[in-house]
Amino acid sequence: MTMSWHMMVEFEPPLVACVVSNANHSFTALRATKECVIAIPAVELAPKVVGIGNCSGRDVDKFERFSLTPAPAERVAPPQIAECFANLECQVVDARLVNKLNLFVLEVVKAWNDPAQKHPKTIYHRGNGRFAVDGAMIKLKSRKP
Amino acid sequence: MTMSWHMMVEFEPPLVACVVSNANHSFTALRATKECVIAIPAVELAPKVVGIGNCSGRDVDKFERFSLTPAPAERVAPPQIAECFANLECQVVDARLVNKLNLFVLEVVKAWNDPAQKHPKTIYHRGNGRFAVDGAMIKLKSRKP
Repeated sequence: MTMSWHMMVEFEPPLVACVVSNANHSFTALRATKECVIAIPAVELAPKVVGIGNCSGRDVDKFERFSLTPAPAERVAPPQIAECFANLECQVVDARLVNKLNLFVLEVVKAWNDPAQKHPKTIYHRGNGRFAVDGAMIKLKSRKP
Repeated sequence: MTMSWHMMVEFEPPLVACVVSNANHSFTALRATKECVIAIPAVELAPKVVGIGNCSGRDVDKFERFSLTPAPAERVAPPQIAECFANLECQVVDARLVNKLNLFVLEVVKAWNDPAQKHPKTIYHRGNGRFAVDGAMIKLKSRKP
């Protein structure tokens, strides 16, 4: 599935929160298996990102339809997406807000990046198919992580 | 305070989740008052964003030190920041993950934007004072919000 709503929660252990609509096929899978892979696409994959968000795994094999390559994960059963520059293998560690808010808290148990994608530009969804693409990178002096 | 970790949770009512470290002055204030304003800065404010994140409201008046203008909010007691292009007045609606994860769920009860800032570029924190600045905007055909 395509997921817009997510954030970091903790550095150590690395925790991520995300919202998965209970209308989605992935909601049922994530609640049942308590595992997923968050695969992070660069801008070149944007058309596939939108296409994947506009159909359901109930009806189609998305790897096949969008010509993406499943790659085995090390710590969880669901596959990585080989074309993505980063893949985060995750396990659900807190489900208290799932029933009310569809909000899962995940621990990243293994993280991978593709060294062949050196400076991937990420995309930020602004709604209705509009995305901001990474532009300039700035570095300011900070004592904080 | 400066906050990096936040995400949307629901469209209607508009909900936002955020993580505020329990080491922060703002954590105590948010937990006690159950209200805040999320003020969203454009890239021009980046040096102030970092400066604000590197000191504590226990020690300094940040509005004064960083020459920012507090403006009255309509629905909550804490002030808006006049220099920010958007101000979201928020109330805590779910605190179940606060003790364990410092994660607050907020409802945006009133949202403002500054019409004088027509195309604000936002910044995305990558850690240690590094930020990605909005670059190109792309629009793909999507049936999803």
